[in-house]
Amino acid sequence: MAAETAAEGPVLIIGAGLLGASVGLGLRHLGVSTWLRDASPTAEAIGADIGAGSSERLALAAGETVPEPSLIVVATPPDVVVETVAQALGEHPQAIVTDVASVKSAIQEGLRTRGADLRRYVGSHPMAGRERSGPVAARGELFTTMPWVLCAAPETDPAAVKRVRSLAQDLGAHVTELEADEHDAAVALISHVPQVMSSLLASRLQDTPLHHLSLAGQGLRDTTRIAASDPGLWVQILSANAESIVPSLHGVREDLDRLISTLEDPTGPGARLDMAELIAEGNAGQARIPGKHGGAPKAFAQLTVLVDDKPGKLGELFSAVGETGINLEDLRLEHSLGRRVGLAEISVDPNRRDELVEALEQRGWKVVQ
Amino acid sequence: MAAETAAEGPVLIIGAGLLGASVGLGLRHLGVSTWLRDASPTAEAIGADIGAGSSERLALAAGETVPEPSLIVVATPPDVVVETVAQALGEHPQAIVTDVASVKSAIQEGLRTRGADLRRYVGSHPMAGRERSGPVAARGELFTTMPWVLCAAPETDPAAVKRVRSLAQDLGAHVTELEADEHDAAVALISHVPQVMSSLLASRLQDTPLHHLSLAGQGLRDTTRIAASDPGLWVQILSANAESIVPSLHGVREDLDRLISTLEDPTGPGARLDMAELIAEGNAGQARIPGKHGGAPKAFAQLTVLVDDKPGKLGELFSAVGETGINLEDLRLEHSLGRRVGLAEISVDPNRRDELVEALEQRGWKVVQ
Repeated sequence: MAAETAAEGPVLIIGAGLLGASVGLGLRHLGVSTWLRDASPTAEAIGADIGAGSSERLALAAGETVPEPSLIVVATPPDVVVETVAQALGEHPQAIVTDVASVKSAIQEGLRTRGADLRRYVGSHPMAGRERSGPVAARGELFTTMPWVLCAAPETDPAAVKRVRSLAQDLGAHVTELEADEHDAAVALISHVPQVMSSLLASRLQDTPLHHLSLAGQGLRDTTRIAASDPGLWVQILSANAESIVPSLHGVREDLDRLISTLEDPTGPGARLDMAELIAEGNAGQARIPGKHGGAPKAFAQLTVLVDDKPGKLGELFSAVGETGINLEDLRLEHSLGRRVGLAEISVDPNRRDELVEALEQRGWKVVQ
Repeated sequence: MAAETAAEGPVLIIGAGLLGASVGLGLRHLGVSTWLRDASPTAEAIGADIGAGSSERLALAAGETVPEPSLIVVATPPDVVVETVAQALGEHPQAIVTDVASVKSAIQEGLRTRGADLRRYVGSHPMAGRERSGPVAARGELFTTMPWVLCAAPETDPAAVKRVRSLAQDLGAHVTELEADEHDAAVALISHVPQVMSSLLASRLQDTPLHHLSLAGQGLRDTTRIAASDPGLWVQILSANAESIVPSLHGVREDLDRLISTLEDPTGPGARLDMAELIAEGNAGQARIPGKHGGAPKAFAQLTVLVDDKPGKLGELFSAVGETGINLEDLRLEHSLGRRVGLAEISVDPNRRDELVEALEQRGWKVVQ
């Protein structure tokens, strides 16, 4: 699959952070020649050290020739993407240029305003990331199995789209094409509004006594996990996609206002119905999120097994599951307070649950019915 | 541990839903005699069938004698707890009575208003639950390792507190004592406000095109998981704890209003600082949530391993981890779109991460650096 990309010549990656260095690692692993350029000499050197590509700066300093790239991946912070893509298109008139920023319309508009050659530009958004950033956190498999959205402009040459599609596919991503506006509306709802809600919620915990927080269960942990994200990056994302985010936040505010009024008079007329509607609407929205593998939401059957929190115990459990030939569809570990014992909740095909329970019990596992 | 409870005579459980039936299963397993009473004959019969206790209704119909309980656990829906506890205290003048509702002040006040004998009443809140409800979902280990808060009234006899503490401990829970008001303030923030935020967020997804939702990552799944909760139950919880929830929701609304104003003019003066503050405040709140085992937040080291999504593959991985003698502190499976390959993120003691990486790579695992 990578042969085509490799045959088409070297890839220049501008910005050696988490995404840029991960693209480099993935391509290098496939035998593609990659070069790194970063405003930070340190990031560029680290990127080269971990094997994401050759340092352009070091090569030029050593008087070596850097080959002309056929593809340029701009992976800078979002607020300098337009400028960087425009420069790259100008400096390398044969190269196809893509970027990996998570908001696409403003970039396309900015490039059009500057008169950039949009025939050779394809906006892209690999929907992969980590709570950590920088080249040290990079990994070649970052994009494996993840969605990667391509947003071609009306002016974009189909050959450019094909090249960027190959890049994403070579890195193991699942490619989708959307108009830039539609992409931005989608990520506002599935990524940016969740980030805002998680941050608003976690912000409330700043003054909570620690002995109250010690009572917290998985619900609080799940709802606040992404609140650990990087403020610097998110300022840029929220700014760039403000137009798509605001309507949803207005919707949230209307629902919140209604709920506050209801809770200020919780025995008033219609109060219980208002509360029930809020929760039921949440049920309805949540149920629409597809399961893994991009399929339709599917009800798996669960079983829960008590596991000693000791080295190897989970391994023994999953070996036992593996011996049955039944595929484990999902797994949750329940975190516990005080005791070193855990609960492993296993999801499997509903038609094979009973068989698995029996097999595990025969092997001495304590399955919770 | 359970000998004391068993020696003190039978336990009557009123309400054979998830919590009541789970209490029954756990106690029966310890050899304690339990009886079930439920307004629904079906629920009472199912509870008895799964082994949570003897059906009081069936025993009385057969002309048998039901022994006087020494302890009564009221596990009815929250809106009938006051009435049920008051009746139980009146009908069984020797029994200690507890309930398992998740809001405590209103119940204590309601009982005091009715002139109930608070010396024998101890409010309690086992902080365990599932997204599913009813006796079929019950499990004796539901409370194992989970927090269980006791809220004694000023009038409560210390012997009554001791008895209910034994119950919780026998069921494997980790017991904390709090004043009812303090408990309600704590759960408002760690449980009820997160539920509201998750429901408000998930509600936005009702009209989102499915092909947008198919791009969703783990962030959206985590933040909306608890939005699947039962509306009927949550109406009662939100009503009962409205007073403690509203101040936090006012705080959320102020932050949300500020953010909406900022996003409506994202290039205005101070806009970037406002956005950065929101995310940074979320960082600060999130970082205060303790890790598992109730300890202080601890930074584990992560490593990520590529795992074929086939039966037994996770088992082989965890067997390999187990052989190293290094304890697995946490585990996340990254759900993936389209491809049947997964990423397992393993958390371990930072001092042993390198050793584990080496050991796994020697065994042929693909560890992402």
